[in-house]
Amino acid sequence: MASSIYRQHLDANRANHTALTPLSFLARAAAVYPDKTAVIHGKHRFSYGRFRDRCHRLASALARRGIGEGDTVAVMAPNVPAMLEAHYGVPMIGAVLNCLNTRLDAGAIAFCLAHGEAKLLIADTEYADIVERALSQLDRRIPVIDIADAHAAGGRRIAETDYEGLLSEGDPAFKPPSIAEEWSAISLGYTSGTTGNPKGVVCHHRGAYLNAVGNILTVGLDNRSIYLWTLPMFHCNGWCFTWAVTAVAGTHVCLRRVEPAAVYAAIAREGVTHLCGAPIVLNVLANAPDQAKTKIAHKVQVTTGGAAPPSAVIAAMERNGFHVNHAYGLTESYGPALICAWHDEWDSRPPAERARLTARQGVNYPTLEDLMVADPETMVELPWDGRTMGEIFLRGNTVMMGYLKNPTATDTAFRGGWFHTGDLGVRHPDGYVEVKDRSKDVIISGGENISSIEVEEVLYRHPNILEAAVVARPDAKWGEHPCAFVTLRPEAGEMTAAEVIAYCRSQMAHFKAPRTVVFGPLPKTSTGKIQKYLLREQAKALAPGEG
Amino acid sequence: MASSIYRQHLDANRANHTALTPLSFLARAAAVYPDKTAVIHGKHRFSYGRFRDRCHRLASALARRGIGEGDTVAVMAPNVPAMLEAHYGVPMIGAVLNCLNTRLDAGAIAFCLAHGEAKLLIADTEYADIVERALSQLDRRIPVIDIADAHAAGGRRIAETDYEGLLSEGDPAFKPPSIAEEWSAISLGYTSGTTGNPKGVVCHHRGAYLNAVGNILTVGLDNRSIYLWTLPMFHCNGWCFTWAVTAVAGTHVCLRRVEPAAVYAAIAREGVTHLCGAPIVLNVLANAPDQAKTKIAHKVQVTTGGAAPPSAVIAAMERNGFHVNHAYGLTESYGPALICAWHDEWDSRPPAERARLTARQGVNYPTLEDLMVADPETMVELPWDGRTMGEIFLRGNTVMMGYLKNPTATDTAFRGGWFHTGDLGVRHPDGYVEVKDRSKDVIISGGENISSIEVEEVLYRHPNILEAAVVARPDAKWGEHPCAFVTLRPEAGEMTAAEVIAYCRSQMAHFKAPRTVVFGPLPKTSTGKIQKYLLREQAKALAPGEG
Repeated sequence: MASSIYRQHLDANRANHTALTPLSFLARAAAVYPDKTAVIHGKHRFSYGRFRDRCHRLASALARRGIGEGDTVAVMAPNVPAMLEAHYGVPMIGAVLNCLNTRLDAGAIAFCLAHGEAKLLIADTEYADIVERALSQLDRRIPVIDIADAHAAGGRRIAETDYEGLLSEGDPAFKPPSIAEEWSAISLGYTSGTTGNPKGVVCHHRGAYLNAVGNILTVGLDNRSIYLWTLPMFHCNGWCFTWAVTAVAGTHVCLRRVEPAAVYAAIAREGVTHLCGAPIVLNVLANAPDQAKTKIAHKVQVTTGGAAPPSAVIAAMERNGFHVNHAYGLTESYGPALICAWHDEWDSRPPAERARLTARQGVNYPTLEDLMVADPETMVELPWDGRTMGEIFLRGNTVMMGYLKNPTATDTAFRGGWFHTGDLGVRHPDGYVEVKDRSKDVIISGGENISSIEVEEVLYRHPNILEAAVVARPDAKWGEHPCAFVTLRPEAGEMTAAEVIAYCRSQMAHFKAPRTVVFGPLPKTSTGKIQKYLLREQAKALAPGEG
Repeated sequence: MASSIYRQHLDANRANHTALTPLSFLARAAAVYPDKTAVIHGKHRFSYGRFRDRCHRLASALARRGIGEGDTVAVMAPNVPAMLEAHYGVPMIGAVLNCLNTRLDAGAIAFCLAHGEAKLLIADTEYADIVERALSQLDRRIPVIDIADAHAAGGRRIAETDYEGLLSEGDPAFKPPSIAEEWSAISLGYTSGTTGNPKGVVCHHRGAYLNAVGNILTVGLDNRSIYLWTLPMFHCNGWCFTWAVTAVAGTHVCLRRVEPAAVYAAIAREGVTHLCGAPIVLNVLANAPDQAKTKIAHKVQVTTGGAAPPSAVIAAMERNGFHVNHAYGLTESYGPALICAWHDEWDSRPPAERARLTARQGVNYPTLEDLMVADPETMVELPWDGRTMGEIFLRGNTVMMGYLKNPTATDTAFRGGWFHTGDLGVRHPDGYVEVKDRSKDVIISGGENISSIEVEEVLYRHPNILEAAVVARPDAKWGEHPCAFVTLRPEAGEMTAAEVIAYCRSQMAHFKAPRTVVFGPLPKTSTGKIQKYLLREQAKALAPGEG
């Protein structure tokens, strides 16, 4: 419609177009609520005015050190104020924030720093040893800034300048340049990389803005929200809650370490209204000893994702006064992309049915354009019958720009105009998606697909079982069979492998029941995901007849 | 940063970029909540599934009649379902929705239809006479569709096809083409045009999406919201609540006519949580006779704008169980652009101070980039002292694309990279803006500027006065002086002009007090704005010594 009257002298200009960026959230919160508490860290608390000033200091100090547009700044820190401030101060000058997973080993950290071409590393003194080892593996020198947090236990200074010293180099009245393009990188996040080298997911200002809005609409954040940082900020930028909480001028409550007693105490002390975490965090909170559980008088909204929470864990959380919002997403989708949107009529359903409904991952976030469950190869959409398993595909503004310096992986991920999640699921007749497995986690036994999540779901319902994970074990006859790794509750009595197997066979088709059971603690990533690739290796290495 | 690693093979594609459009809100609401009530009109109610199907029918029926991208479809209707559906069905095929002000005369309607190049007019039978007269003034034939609403009183069919007939031509399973560009026109709205021909404000999909999000964040809409249509949808697309309510899958309650008893009854019957209206609507509701006021047990959020509400009106609304959100905006800013964002500490202030705080227009909407109060000519920002009056300037994504076929007016409005509102105000030390007047409404008496709003504010506080408007009257000695037009409450006794003047002089600097007082009803636009230009003409025409 080039000749349309609506294309004549109606163009974008400085008055009617600005880039969407979550940096605008901080500017507005500080302008409207300069005296409202923005950040709490132990006994230390500061206002939105001060929060903005500190971010301005950080941005201008970085600029004075020669960091600018398109430069990577890496941060390795727990959920402390410096980490939160980096989400504003770094992109404010057009630089790109690379939050490092604090539980990676030195080799993996070195890989991220090298691949991401970090110009500066800001690291908490708690990680001094690993940082030094990582830096020693690099063929260039990266300047380091220490975060010397008063709440840290131990830690060791390795840099000349600490974070507060860096801030003192900066100007609180700094006027940040405006972000010229919303399609420009704001963050770089490496996927946990269960196999091979991690991939660097690049996200932009537009998507960060929109996913933050999606969070607000989905979990109901507002001006009175108090958000507790139980989810690591290095995990998809705290799934964009780093920006969402600021957008509503709510309060960020920092937390170095997720320990049940500290979490319950913070909830009671600060009146926390919202928190997020992987299912493992929920499990730890629900199963904390009673003396660790400070009485909570109000409802706390807990958003979980990153893995499928067993319905038994959801039910236990609800009994403890939490309302669970079940989300699903990946680093490639800025965190949450699906949400099990609630229907009022579910309120009156029996608890078991509610938990079953909530255990589904649901529908697209309001800010994600579309999703489908389709054949992984042909990409033909599959029936919404709750049974036919296919790959989950996403499309929309909250899908990553691509993988850094990896055009092949980027093209593969976007083949056919959809983002290929690699996760398998079914779509129920009401349109709700239920994730059944990572494609690589499916067990193929006698030609039948077995969802490891389905078997785990049954195991979690057993009163003696605290945690469970199921992987494929090579099987001479069936090709593979399900192998269950189980952690029993400390207070539970003895339980044999045969009893576990018999229990499972009473609850599901026999071919799906584990034929091997291994007892013991489960290996986990820093974000609480059980490391199935390690369990798969362990299952492969079992001697015949073992387990 | 062309050579930056963040600019290499990280481009937009169909998987990671879609146009922002409020049409996505309907798609999602219907997908997630197909059975939830979307629209109520009297005893008639229908679900989101049916709402979507009806919009699909409308879109495909229009397409079959040859309407497409960049074509204008005009609608002249009260707040009935057809009007709401036009907000989706028309832009769904890339066409542009032009809602006509139902109180314009035939000449003005003819101007809009001709200037906007409408390809089709959908009009409620209530306006048959004026539509026929308007069409007879055009030099081309425009096809008409009748809206024959069962709730209409009177009305007359003038077209062959009615709206339901048009829908029956369409396909409920229509697959709308995706919106290729978010910077494309979604609506055309003519400014009320107090002088000269109206200007056609063009808004785009991106801005409509964002201002709808701004409404949700500002007034707290969610899935349980029940929105009553007291604000005309032809006024800035119902200030974008046409789209915002759908975004949260709330319920739209239609209403043909704003009568106090009907409004109170709908609030009680449907459990209305939100409504909007010009200050005059608030005044009518607050001053309704007691028998018209159905008891409201819950708090209703009322958002007002379009003119400055006197603080006495806000206080009266609060006494009646409403919470007033005070917004400010223009057709050029998609409706609300400023909001008097609440601070919790204001809760404990005395009622008079609360009303004074709320009477300010406030700060930028979360979705508007920036605002300033500056010298109208030099555009230099003025001190935030609550006293220095300047013009209000806006900047951001919710500022119009421009005026249709009017490059000169567009360039003037955007001079210097800001949108010039033409409204005058002050900025308080806390950053909150208070509108003092339209620039043309300021009275200049003996070289002193007098804010007509300030004088009106005092008049509204008098117990005998129901409504008041103050304009300039030519004055041989002072140049101009304030002339007050006053409507007394029906139950109030006699009051003389001298008494009104004496009261004003007791409340303000004497030079600001009216020197002329005229009693009687005030002329208003369809959106409840008092038509000051008519009063100005009346004031000019007064014989010397009259009034």
